[in-house]
Amino acid sequence: MAETIRIIGIDPGLRRTGWGIVEACGNSLRFLGAGTIRSDDKANLASRLCQLHDGLAGIIHAERPDEAAVEQTFVNKDATATLKLGQARGVAMLVPALAGLPVSEYAPNAVKKTVIGVGHGDKRQIHMMVKVLMPRATFDTDDAADALAIAICHAHHRQSAAGRLAALARAG
Amino acid sequence: MAETIRIIGIDPGLRRTGWGIVEACGNSLRFLGAGTIRSDDKANLASRLCQLHDGLAGIIHAERPDEAAVEQTFVNKDATATLKLGQARGVAMLVPALAGLPVSEYAPNAVKKTVIGVGHGDKRQIHMMVKVLMPRATFDTDDAADALAIAICHAHHRQSAAGRLAALARAG
Repeated sequence: MAETIRIIGIDPGLRRTGWGIVEACGNSLRFLGAGTIRSDDKANLASRLCQLHDGLAGIIHAERPDEAAVEQTFVNKDATATLKLGQARGVAMLVPALAGLPVSEYAPNAVKKTVIGVGHGDKRQIHMMVKVLMPRATFDTDDAADALAIAICHAHHRQSAAGRLAALARAG
Repeated sequence: MAETIRIIGIDPGLRRTGWGIVEACGNSLRFLGAGTIRSDDKANLASRLCQLHDGLAGIIHAERPDEAAVEQTFVNKDATATLKLGQARGVAMLVPALAGLPVSEYAPNAVKKTVIGVGHGDKRQIHMMVKVLMPRATFDTDDAADALAIAICHAHHRQSAAGRLAALARAG
């Protein structure tokens, strides 16, 4: 019997961090929740990072996911934007790790390839496929939809990794 | 009578995060401690961020500083290096903020200007001036020395800010 695992996907950002929780059992996926944590852009950086921390820690405490997956974002705009994203991303990776969850990282094109079949595509295609894969899914922002896509990507990859290990075990 | 305040300065980095603690009373400075938190570069990113978190949280818990100051670093090398630094910096700002400390940020040239009198200068000049200002100071790495310089910078600026406020109050 396939193991049931609860995955939190996180799309980090200083202004908005999307999260989405999915239950995976073998090849089947079940939507559990999704939403957006916002930080107050009038507050100082340390307070904003605390807001992200508290929001994510609250969700992890309430929903008790088993594993986390975070988007491996790169911003090429400028160093200031990249540093800002990095700071939010540091908190987004730290919070599940402090809760004892293994944290995987996926590049945006890996997420797209898993969810829409190709490594490129716009936000609407991702939203549509998230709805196709989990018709009950609801999300308030693009970031929450992306977070669900990241969780789906992890469900798929951990499943394939488990399959490969099982095949190796059978072969060995 | 001048208030005695304990300041932690932090020079964030993923591989090495320097910290230094200074007690400031009016214009006088006292060295309390300095050191370096290292993360295991063979571990994954989430674990490394946890190592930085645990190291900093342990020092803050043991030394009970009142205020924190973090270097506002910018890396112009490449987006990957900047993102990496940003992630460490996010944790370095989060930990004191979660402990309830106000967190100030200082640009590297502001730190240099306060400690060595000009906005540019090499590491050796900073080390020398840290030793001149606090002869008992010891530090194991450049990062720890920089962290002490950041704490000194904050001691100076909060003092001037308090002086300006007092002058305004007297004028008003």
